[in-house]
Amino acid sequence: MNSQNTNNKFKLVLSVGDESGIGPEIILKALCSDEIPKNIEFIVVGSKKNLQNTYNHLRSLGLKKLANPKNLTIYDLEFNSTESGYKSSYGNSSFHYLTKAIEIVKQYPDSALVTGPICKKSWSQAGHDFAGQTEVLAKLCGVKNVGMLFTAKSPITGWRFNTLLTTTHIALCEVPKILTKELIHSKLDLFKEFCRTYIDTPTLKVAGLNPHAGEEGILGNEEKDWLNDALITWNEKNKDIKLLGPLSPDSCWNSSAKAWREKDAEKHDGILAMYHDQGLIPMKVIALNYSVNTTIGLPFIRTSPDHGTGFDIAGKGIAQSQSMIEAIKAAIEMTNNSRLLNTH
Amino acid sequence: MNSQNTNNKFKLVLSVGDESGIGPEIILKALCSDEIPKNIEFIVVGSKKNLQNTYNHLRSLGLKKLANPKNLTIYDLEFNSTESGYKSSYGNSSFHYLTKAIEIVKQYPDSALVTGPICKKSWSQAGHDFAGQTEVLAKLCGVKNVGMLFTAKSPITGWRFNTLLTTTHIALCEVPKILTKELIHSKLDLFKEFCRTYIDTPTLKVAGLNPHAGEEGILGNEEKDWLNDALITWNEKNKDIKLLGPLSPDSCWNSSAKAWREKDAEKHDGILAMYHDQGLIPMKVIALNYSVNTTIGLPFIRTSPDHGTGFDIAGKGIAQSQSMIEAIKAAIEMTNNSRLLNTH
Repeated sequence: MNSQNTNNKFKLVLSVGDESGIGPEIILKALCSDEIPKNIEFIVVGSKKNLQNTYNHLRSLGLKKLANPKNLTIYDLEFNSTESGYKSSYGNSSFHYLTKAIEIVKQYPDSALVTGPICKKSWSQAGHDFAGQTEVLAKLCGVKNVGMLFTAKSPITGWRFNTLLTTTHIALCEVPKILTKELIHSKLDLFKEFCRTYIDTPTLKVAGLNPHAGEEGILGNEEKDWLNDALITWNEKNKDIKLLGPLSPDSCWNSSAKAWREKDAEKHDGILAMYHDQGLIPMKVIALNYSVNTTIGLPFIRTSPDHGTGFDIAGKGIAQSQSMIEAIKAAIEMTNNSRLLNTH
Repeated sequence: MNSQNTNNKFKLVLSVGDESGIGPEIILKALCSDEIPKNIEFIVVGSKKNLQNTYNHLRSLGLKKLANPKNLTIYDLEFNSTESGYKSSYGNSSFHYLTKAIEIVKQYPDSALVTGPICKKSWSQAGHDFAGQTEVLAKLCGVKNVGMLFTAKSPITGWRFNTLLTTTHIALCEVPKILTKELIHSKLDLFKEFCRTYIDTPTLKVAGLNPHAGEEGILGNEEKDWLNDALITWNEKNKDIKLLGPLSPDSCWNSSAKAWREKDAEKHDGILAMYHDQGLIPMKVIALNYSVNTTIGLPFIRTSPDHGTGFDIAGKGIAQSQSMIEAIKAAIEMTNNSRLLNTH
């Protein structure tokens, strides 16, 4: 890393993620996009050698719109990553790129972090037992209540579509065991705080856990036994929030689909999902490549694309960088640097 | 019911569902729609008095495009349904409308059944302990292996989007306990048979149960322990089917969203979902009012709109009948009576 980093430009730190996946490719593509402002200092945390190799390989495939690693500020970390796929060496390097990136972003107030996709299996094989990057971020920042929020800005209506997950990377059978009133309250607190940065009186929706939100106990008891009450109690303490729920999960996101597509549709500020796929299925289907993963509750802004490592298409030059571009743009917006976004 | 019913016209039996909901309203609206062919004999099973009252009330609100019950063939069943909402009287009448409708459709070969929405809570209060209409249909037809399939025809591309549920109306915590290799195989058998009525070599996708389809056991064991093998074993016996999965649930339906919107997108013939909301969330978000519920594995065709009773909007005249129209059209198509569809 050279001495340019001491200037006052807004800094955005990028960890490349798993190098045997599409992380390096989408970063080189995104940093060359017209949608990304020039007046930002990007600090890429990864292997300079690997980034250069990726660049040369993609050029040899005929790709031209790529940032040249020679022109990037790279915090160079070299590990012995020679194998491909689910290998512990890539698990180890991607883990250390992330922890170094966190260290750097903590040094600069008002900077932000964008993380490339990692492979949990490779982390596990390398002895790094975290359920995901979010959990590493929480630990290294010493915070307990963080939230995995997915956010996307509709290119049609400009509406921002937010879905927060109550539970994240756990087996489906664990979900009903882990959900509690306290957990719901802590996520609603985070969600409210996040929405308050851009609207005074947010409207939040909460999905039920069971089909038809339990249909009064016929299809599951959680709503009737405690979830209904949990929402009432929280809303009593937060009367300025319009809180709706628990709603039938299978129609809860219909209004989001409409708000995404139609200017005149009723808008809401966010939906709290009970589990990973309940929130991510509608998010991805509605927003496709525009969806961005962001961690709320951290001392800095962190975003990432909403897809995985894409091992099956790595090295082919066909990875789409739109979600990485959106992750960078969302990080810029959320650090109140929207003025830097010269497009859209 | 008058003597006209003995003619040779294609017969479509409609049960009105719960009369304190939007069932009667959407039936009167749908039967007047230009999308519904005239050369069909509709037999409505419900209360003549209630249908007439609904008609008069909607007319008084200014609605004009409504079928007049006086001109409909109604199998009139009168119960003492005077209360509103989740009441056992409506639970009792809607249950008997369904069982009578099943009896009628069984009398006429090649006829079909379309069912209005019911309220499970009201059924339960009236002492009819079934998880849903599908379960009543299976019992009264003496079949065990039925499937709850959601189907929608894209008005943009003409592609038919099918999602079959492995488990249906059960609490989320029951899902991992009930899923077995045998259950998956029986649903794939049904799905194959259904798809075969219109394509020789279907492509079927199967969603995983856990986030990222378990990510090799990191986020759940079902895929690794038996689901992967279950799909391989089934495919070995059904080599003419292109079977993909278990796929990451949160991206499994992305290709459906594209195929719904874009003519050139890759098409598949169906997705097997592990549970109710996993399948219905993407179905509704992608197809909105075009989605239809159909029961496969019965001796006759049965469809229904994919929404509930709509108690909150009943009597207001604002219920959308598109899903009921699609349910009728799908029943016509699935009984090989497409020639009767003079529009679309």
